[in-house]
Amino acid sequence: MIRSRTAVVFCLLAVIAGCQASDPLPSWNEGAAKQRIVAFVRTVTDPASETYVRPAERIAVFDNDGTLWTEQPLYVQVEFIFDRIQALAPNRPEWAEKPVFKAALNRDYDAMRSHGHAGLIELVLAAQTGMTTDEFEQLVLDWLATAKHPRFDQPYTACVYQPMLELLDYLRANGFQTWIVSAGNAGFIRPWTEQAYGIPPEQVVASRVVAKYELRDGIPVIMRMPESDFSNSGPDKAVGIYQLIGRRPILAVGNSDGDFEMLEWTTAGPGRRLGVFIHHDDTVREAAYDRDSSIGRLRRGLDAAAHHDWLVVSMKNDWRRIFPFELASR
Amino acid sequence: MIRSRTAVVFCLLAVIAGCQASDPLPSWNEGAAKQRIVAFVRTVTDPASETYVRPAERIAVFDNDGTLWTEQPLYVQVEFIFDRIQALAPNRPEWAEKPVFKAALNRDYDAMRSHGHAGLIELVLAAQTGMTTDEFEQLVLDWLATAKHPRFDQPYTACVYQPMLELLDYLRANGFQTWIVSAGNAGFIRPWTEQAYGIPPEQVVASRVVAKYELRDGIPVIMRMPESDFSNSGPDKAVGIYQLIGRRPILAVGNSDGDFEMLEWTTAGPGRRLGVFIHHDDTVREAAYDRDSSIGRLRRGLDAAAHHDWLVVSMKNDWRRIFPFELASR
Repeated sequence: MIRSRTAVVFCLLAVIAGCQASDPLPSWNEGAAKQRIVAFVRTVTDPASETYVRPAERIAVFDNDGTLWTEQPLYVQVEFIFDRIQALAPNRPEWAEKPVFKAALNRDYDAMRSHGHAGLIELVLAAQTGMTTDEFEQLVLDWLATAKHPRFDQPYTACVYQPMLELLDYLRANGFQTWIVSAGNAGFIRPWTEQAYGIPPEQVVASRVVAKYELRDGIPVIMRMPESDFSNSGPDKAVGIYQLIGRRPILAVGNSDGDFEMLEWTTAGPGRRLGVFIHHDDTVREAAYDRDSSIGRLRRGLDAAAHHDWLVVSMKNDWRRIFPFELASR
Repeated sequence: MIRSRTAVVFCLLAVIAGCQASDPLPSWNEGAAKQRIVAFVRTVTDPASETYVRPAERIAVFDNDGTLWTEQPLYVQVEFIFDRIQALAPNRPEWAEKPVFKAALNRDYDAMRSHGHAGLIELVLAAQTGMTTDEFEQLVLDWLATAKHPRFDQPYTACVYQPMLELLDYLRANGFQTWIVSAGNAGFIRPWTEQAYGIPPEQVVASRVVAKYELRDGIPVIMRMPESDFSNSGPDKAVGIYQLIGRRPILAVGNSDGDFEMLEWTTAGPGRRLGVFIHHDDTVREAAYDRDSSIGRLRRGLDAAAHHDWLVVSMKNDWRRIFPFELASR
């Protein structure tokens, strides 16, 4: 009697497990995009497949801003920098004379952008260096604990894409390593990716400032220095992957032209590869932008996707749900 | 009957497993060094321990030259560079006029060293840049397939320390990540660490040359450029760890003063930590060198080990066997 009850429980568990296994991506609508992703994972993980890839080489790389979490109306790191500049300004009266700092203090992104990459780097260095690495990590965590997205009124770490969380889990369950490859600063990204995405700090490839080892009253610290060390963007995303991972990925996912070479490098390798662009085309649930956007511009990528056989995912049509805090809408 | 025979087999298997589990480090002699390592691993992995460390934070870092494989009579990478310079010399007649190249062509390490770090970098750039990353990887693998250690007459990748192989396995079996943190060039180290040590390329922190993404006839490649990007040595080993791993290790193992700050940084963190120096003191089986050696000098480290409570491992007394190709000697 006990035995047969146990057997029933086991059967039920097996059925539940079977159901879960049959749809690892519940926030993805049925359709070509989901099918292609699942088919790719199956073909590289099936030992009988000619395109089988051993687990050690199942490297998947993901851009962060606009690919794993929202980058509209502003990159989250820029929001952080604006707040830091605001907090530091009382002690830095000279900033009042400097246009790029004035733009930051006015939260005027358009004005700030007119100063180009150099202007942004100036703000990054002012806001994100001059402290120890431990101190900076604490600043980031403290800010994330209270800051909220202006539209969704949620912590930024909740403004992550539910379908991408499922994709990350699905890939890891299939023996993939999931890496972030971002133009953001590593010190800003690493403190929270483990909790938000299940991605540990050592699987984050990102931009860096120069760091320096020092003894402070005999205690060793690593100082974040006011000098850019590496900008992990565009062609240098492929370089960052080489320098940190040392292997060519087999799957790359991005959403802007800053990810173009990462996809190009990934999909030019031998064997089965997959390049994916997440296309922001959902005005209602998030935002629609591509060719002419100042944030997350996607022009070369859209033009070249067919030629490279890259998958373009429509957030509007391919995603049943966008954010974890949102109820499934269809 | 069948059942009891099965039970006997299971008992035997359990006994065998028990024996293996009871000595995960068979090439380490019983003694204080081995005891301290085992006690450290137990205290950070026992969930009931006050000094328990969750698996994600069990980062162990290892220097390579002189810690995982032999660096005598010459760093292996320098042997490779000498051979490359020799092979390239017929097409570079101008080298005949340059003292540092002449030293390399004569395999005169003392003369080469008189040109200091700048001289070594000049040779590194001449021998290890100007090709794609894939081409360089092939050059390294081809060289390792035929080159042999001058004394042991074994491939260099066989001149690894058996006790360290066991330690790496033991740590991984206890949920540690095992990382290499080396002053050698990443492109030289990564192609073979997975096979030699079970350490994948993405867990190698090392020196870098500048790399550049390019299209060659439409095919993307990453070129190794004749410019140093990062020298992962001394205080910059701690920086390299921060930039690539993003977490402070809990265990660091080195053998020279170039590893001093890596141990200092590791053991200055909170909770239970362990810093280890491998002391080369076995003239018979390998080599004895420390305070006055030009290769792998260990002076500050020996002087400061007691103050920092770092473990100094005697290769002569603590290691039953040094190389895999050698029979256990005691």
